[in-house]
Amino acid sequence: MKSDLDALMQARNLEAILITGPASHNPPMVYLTGGVHVTVADLIKVRGAAPILYHQTMERDEAARTGLALQDYAGFEYGKLIKQCNGDAIQASAVLYQKMLTDQGITSGRLAVYGQSDAGNAYAIFSALQKLMPDLTVVGEAGNSLLLLARLTKSADEIERVRRMGQVTIAVVDQVAEFLTSHSVEAGVLIKPDGHPLTIGDVKNRINLWLAERGVENPEGTIFSIGRDAAVPHSVGNPADLLRQGQTIVFDIYPCEAGGGYFYDLTRTWCLGYAPDETYKLYEDVLTVFHQVLSEMVPGAFYPDYHARACDLFEELGHPTLRTNPRSTDGFVHGLGHGVGLDIHERPLYGNNATQDDCLSPGAVVTIEPGLYYPERGIGVRLEDTLWVDPEGGIRPLAEYPLDLVLPMSKVKK
Amino acid sequence: MKSDLDALMQARNLEAILITGPASHNPPMVYLTGGVHVTVADLIKVRGAAPILYHQTMERDEAARTGLALQDYAGFEYGKLIKQCNGDAIQASAVLYQKMLTDQGITSGRLAVYGQSDAGNAYAIFSALQKLMPDLTVVGEAGNSLLLLARLTKSADEIERVRRMGQVTIAVVDQVAEFLTSHSVEAGVLIKPDGHPLTIGDVKNRINLWLAERGVENPEGTIFSIGRDAAVPHSVGNPADLLRQGQTIVFDIYPCEAGGGYFYDLTRTWCLGYAPDETYKLYEDVLTVFHQVLSEMVPGAFYPDYHARACDLFEELGHPTLRTNPRSTDGFVHGLGHGVGLDIHERPLYGNNATQDDCLSPGAVVTIEPGLYYPERGIGVRLEDTLWVDPEGGIRPLAEYPLDLVLPMSKVKK
Repeated sequence: MKSDLDALMQARNLEAILITGPASHNPPMVYLTGGVHVTVADLIKVRGAAPILYHQTMERDEAARTGLALQDYAGFEYGKLIKQCNGDAIQASAVLYQKMLTDQGITSGRLAVYGQSDAGNAYAIFSALQKLMPDLTVVGEAGNSLLLLARLTKSADEIERVRRMGQVTIAVVDQVAEFLTSHSVEAGVLIKPDGHPLTIGDVKNRINLWLAERGVENPEGTIFSIGRDAAVPHSVGNPADLLRQGQTIVFDIYPCEAGGGYFYDLTRTWCLGYAPDETYKLYEDVLTVFHQVLSEMVPGAFYPDYHARACDLFEELGHPTLRTNPRSTDGFVHGLGHGVGLDIHERPLYGNNATQDDCLSPGAVVTIEPGLYYPERGIGVRLEDTLWVDPEGGIRPLAEYPLDLVLPMSKVKK
Repeated sequence: MKSDLDALMQARNLEAILITGPASHNPPMVYLTGGVHVTVADLIKVRGAAPILYHQTMERDEAARTGLALQDYAGFEYGKLIKQCNGDAIQASAVLYQKMLTDQGITSGRLAVYGQSDAGNAYAIFSALQKLMPDLTVVGEAGNSLLLLARLTKSADEIERVRRMGQVTIAVVDQVAEFLTSHSVEAGVLIKPDGHPLTIGDVKNRINLWLAERGVENPEGTIFSIGRDAAVPHSVGNPADLLRQGQTIVFDIYPCEAGGGYFYDLTRTWCLGYAPDETYKLYEDVLTVFHQVLSEMVPGAFYPDYHARACDLFEELGHPTLRTNPRSTDGFVHGLGHGVGLDIHERPLYGNNATQDDCLSPGAVVTIEPGLYYPERGIGVRLEDTLWVDPEGGIRPLAEYPLDLVLPMSKVKK
């Protein structure tokens, strides 16, 4: 939790943290600013002290909305710095950071850096800063960083934001179901009132519109794929494809708050009108694993154990998994899930990069998304909810929506 | 232009470039992939060879949509790498890059890195790679990078994409004007049909909806600010504020293609019903500078010279500028403009980081956005168009929209 930052800094022996980049669509910065429209910013938090946000003069109003202590870059006279550095922008940026850090009393010890940035810029500027300040150790954390660890445990306010995104998500999913089933069916294909067939592109346009109506963003797009595409987990779907009865549709939706705030993540698999037996059988296997794993989850447990458990269950049901064959494209070919927050994929993790911190800590938000994929047979099934580890006990979805496979179609012409 | 990449790499003595990060909302990656939904990717382009895109198995369909040569990460067995590195994710990532580069014959010379990434991750991983491969020089370019220089000169296809965003932008701006002027006015305030006053929040919801209807995104939000807020260039506007006749509204809109493609940027300043004399005077000064600078722009010229020219003109008209006082909040307090493309702010630049490359090269897309701000008087005026330097000659907006200040209101009650 954010209130743990000083303790986490102490545990990692960090004197200060520095976050760079804009305040929108930049999770580390949004975590500390709350989310505002500041396009150029840096934030320094010295251990035991309140953060200071650096901003441009013309963004002073937006910076002030954060409620943080502010400092205007103008005081550092970047124009003079870049001249002193003979036009070398990397060196000038490093000198600027040196001044900012020195102002805050940070000239030695360990400094960790975070924030969305160009990889080359970050490598060059922080390498230059490290040379300028040899008594300071610039630390880049990968994976289980201080901020990702703090973010793993969400406050009541954060949970309410995720929950609200969950309500938006299920409202839109329900609109999509209503929209699809309101269509007439001719020769197995959904037909629009104008006589043309409905396409996946049409459906996606509606999804974006309905999300926008609710004031949220969809920066990662939506997976809405049918048939063979549904059998490849991250195929987003072909806009020109028609909606055919009896084929599996994988609908994976993951919108976020405007400006890049909290995400929600939900997947349903639908068959319009009816489901062929082999599809229904796969769906039942996925549903069985979904319910079984959910029923076994307990607060505090090691999250990757449930991925292993899902593999056990799928293998018992006769399906290949990435554990039996790391290159398989058939069967259960991805992880059980991931944490959700300011990133759509965050801690806790299940895979190779998991550490002992990747637990169902009270306040954590995680997905479970068991799935089965058989591209040769043109079938894919995935079911996903976003779950909250309630500090009062219990693990449950933050938004409830039926897991049904078949959406009945009433207007069917032969 | 993209076709210049090999020559630019030669000029900078680069053996290869490496781009990391997702394929959406990541300009360097979108530049080479065209824009697809690949959430985890790396791309390596060796000089003189075609780029290779690295992707996860489950994203093979999306990766294939790029038309690039592909390589699946699965072949590198990251699970084994991380075990060999004792769970050290930074070291494992560096070893992975070493294998990818070695596979492509890159073991020495200069390698430049790009792409949206966490700053700490990038610093740590590329520092580790540099240690692993001492014969290789890892280069982080800031500012005038190879890719930004290539992107400065846009192809006909890129111009069409920006132009289409321009058409979307002016269509939405026109809808907003229609929407505002359709309201009745009571005691100087715009009133909705339900009797409640219209707010800036209401207007922004409509803007997002109308952009979504056209299939585009608005990841940076919109500046729609009135009165005192309009007098602070990057104040985005207070959602609760009412729309009052006679106050200046700065409306700065900068949507992009879905998934993080090309942007457009346009600003108009409006007064509803009427403009007070002092507002009209400032508007005329801004309009004069706008037309004068535009009339003087010639292909090939040094772009920052026009910023200096705008400062000359504003100073002649009696206004402070950042040149006369770098900390002024009155007068012309920002740059004349910026390049526009896959980033809302890209080359050419006008300011401290400008180099001899920041020219109005044929194919460049730039804004001009002269403005005047007087926060104490509660007035701000900015006018902005996005201009194309046509290789056939001429510099003109990619979308035409009237620059009028006053939007007449017909339904006024006293």
